Amino acid sequence: MKRNVIVGQSGGPTAVINASLYGVVYEALNREDACGTVYGMINGIEGFLNDQVMDMEPLERSGELELIRTTPGSYLGSCRYKLPEDLNDEVYPKLFDKFAQYGIGYFFYIGGNDSMDTVSKLSRYAKRTGSDIHFMGIPKTIDNDLVCTDHTPGFGSAAKYVASTVREIAVDASVYDNKKSVTIVEIMGRHAGWLTAASVLARKFENDNPVLIYLPEVAFDPEKFIADVGAALEKMPNLVVCISEGINDGKGTFICELESSVGVDTFGHKMLTGSGKYLENLVKERLGVKVRSVELNVCQRCSSAMLSGTDQKEAIASGAYGVKCAIEGATGKMIGFSRLPGEDYRIDYTMEDVDQICNQEKTVPAEWITGNGSDIGEGFIEYARPLIQGEVKVPTENGLPKFAYRK
Amino acid sequence: MKRNVIVGQSGGPTAVINASLYGVVYEALNREDACGTVYGMINGIEGFLNDQVMDMEPLERSGELELIRTTPGSYLGSCRYKLPEDLNDEVYPKLFDKFAQYGIGYFFYIGGNDSMDTVSKLSRYAKRTGSDIHFMGIPKTIDNDLVCTDHTPGFGSAAKYVASTVREIAVDASVYDNKKSVTIVEIMGRHAGWLTAASVLARKFENDNPVLIYLPEVAFDPEKFIADVGAALEKMPNLVVCISEGINDGKGTFICELESSVGVDTFGHKMLTGSGKYLENLVKERLGVKVRSVELNVCQRCSSAMLSGTDQKEAIASGAYGVKCAIEGATGKMIGFSRLPGEDYRIDYTMEDVDQICNQEKTVPAEWITGNGSDIGEGFIEYARPLIQGEVKVPTENGLPKFAYRK
Repeated sequence: MKRNVIVGQSGGPTAVINASLYGVVYEALNREDACGTVYGMINGIEGFLNDQVMDMEPLERSGELELIRTTPGSYLGSCRYKLPEDLNDEVYPKLFDKFAQYGIGYFFYIGGNDSMDTVSKLSRYAKRTGSDIHFMGIPKTIDNDLVCTDHTPGFGSAAKYVASTVREIAVDASVYDNKKSVTIVEIMGRHAGWLTAASVLARKFENDNPVLIYLPEVAFDPEKFIADVGAALEKMPNLVVCISEGINDGKGTFICELESSVGVDTFGHKMLTGSGKYLENLVKERLGVKVRSVELNVCQRCSSAMLSGTDQKEAIASGAYGVKCAIEGATGKMIGFSRLPGEDYRIDYTMEDVDQICNQEKTVPAEWITGNGSDIGEGFIEYARPLIQGEVKVPTENGLPKFAYRK
Repeated sequence: MKRNVIVGQSGGPTAVINASLYGVVYEALNREDACGTVYGMINGIEGFLNDQVMDMEPLERSGELELIRTTPGSYLGSCRYKLPEDLNDEVYPKLFDKFAQYGIGYFFYIGGNDSMDTVSKLSRYAKRTGSDIHFMGIPKTIDNDLVCTDHTPGFGSAAKYVASTVREIAVDASVYDNKKSVTIVEIMGRHAGWLTAASVLARKFENDNPVLIYLPEVAFDPEKFIADVGAALEKMPNLVVCISEGINDGKGTFICELESSVGVDTFGHKMLTGSGKYLENLVKERLGVKVRSVELNVCQRCSSAMLSGTDQKEAIASGAYGVKCAIEGATGKMIGFSRLPGEDYRIDYTMEDVDQICNQEKTVPAEWITGNGSDIGEGFIEYARPLIQGEVKVPTENGLPKFAYRK
């Protein structure tokens, strides 16, 4: 029996969340034996509650679906809507009435922790009420912090962007190599330092930039930081230091919050300038050298210029695999990645219990953090290197990348 | 008679300043009729004074020269060294003794205003003393602010980076399109708004993002800005606004300096956070909507991911043309670009008097600034569009761009 399909995106966008969307839609449209209409929900479950849905099939005919593969951001729009913990809440029957109204048999949600929480609740509610709708999670996050999977789609491309950009910043910083300078690069990651750790991939040889790397996993001591920077400047004139936005004192205070205790803007508001800016001022004050801070900002998650071919391929495959598994009867699962042993990088796609994933956070293992908390070791490099391999040609128009837009 | 060649780079790096270096070196190495040894000066004229020179010929044999074409930053290193105004200063005979020592007949300096000032002074000193060394300037600056030329190498690639990145930021900002938001993008340019103006190329249709664009050429009024943003938010939920770092009140005060009058960091220093951060706080205070500021920072000038094919080609050609002209007897000139009339974009390379160029600044014409100072018109778009055309494949190694490094 054919049943309709609905797919949504949730949480922050990545460079390949649309590749996962492509994977789900392409596979579902090609499984005419099992799938009827393929719907996209606009702005996730929140939009769906307001009947914001679109038919995805015309996109395949128009060629737009191909373009979605290389378009960053969330084509369907996103939301940050948390379903109530209480499964007796009235939103659940409302949602399931809507599922019935659209004839939904398969539900796919592409996202991170919070999105897996949504999948978990919907599948638990379905089990309780005897609904036979299949709920599947497709992983996505540049933070790479989902448990039960080797890595997540979105991380590889963000890591490739971070590593290549840090390499370029290091080149830029080195042109006045007759004068000492420090460049501090602030990289996304509140609680997990995976993306900041990826900056180590920019290093070409021992003692090359970035020389110092700090993750939120290790308590950050500004005094030790200044000592580290001072010592490194003895060895090379132009230092590049990478830090996670989430570096903290180990007791719950972010370094960027230290700033706000003093800085006040023209409106009397606390200034929240970020950890990089704070450390820039600290280095200027304490070491008196030329210093600059660079916040990589949203470009880390939305740049299409540094799509990892491996990441894009896996994002598509995980979406398609989710459809296959759902049709075969799976529900309440997230697609996971399992790395196979051996010299060459290979992965198997797995199904993981979504209840085990939501609201958990995977941090960088302590043994991969070296240099007394100021460096990243070979273990991480071996782990991350395969994930940034391969280039993707993004279609261009008039000299600029051409993206797909919802009409 | 064969005479030796020396080439240097000066000022801030760009994505194609090394393409110009390639052009000079490649052409000089291939003009065995006129050119002897081809030297590179390390860290510009400042390094040259300390005998920091390298022989460029081995780079051609090793293949490194090819790699230099797509390497951002200044391969030879840079300096910000201003020669004394007084041509009687002792540095001039010292320099010319060194030129004699290295058998220099042709001197090429790749840079912006300040570098042209160096070429001007050296050629004037040569004229005064009867030296027959040929001094040539090869233009370079992402700021596009050199006079006597249609545009400058470096601008096209930076413009392509800015336009594509702003387009990606707009995609990123639009994913929560059920909530109002403002994203302020701060773009390089202290006095001339060319690069900020290039953000208009990201726009795909009327009223598309970036909706508002502010250049330093027009006096900036924070009250009008807030009114502009408020009005634009009525028409679309997710607004992207682009501003030059150098926006000012028209009376010499930068907007970013307003901030510093109140913000003080933990060390009692004035906070210099930038115009974007200032306006972020202003929008938050006055309009109460979600707001974020993004500073594109050094990536604008050092990203190899968005090299313009046109820009790279012209950078190489201007370097090579400089060599041809010098061999034919020119001195005290900068290579300029003259756009030919007609539908299709074509340029002629010209020779401009370097004395007319140094210490001048070309700003964006008033007639290209529209929307009562908050937008960029069709005139600029027609001017800039050809400069960002064409993609360049950068060699990769292990998933990252592979660059040339001085040993």
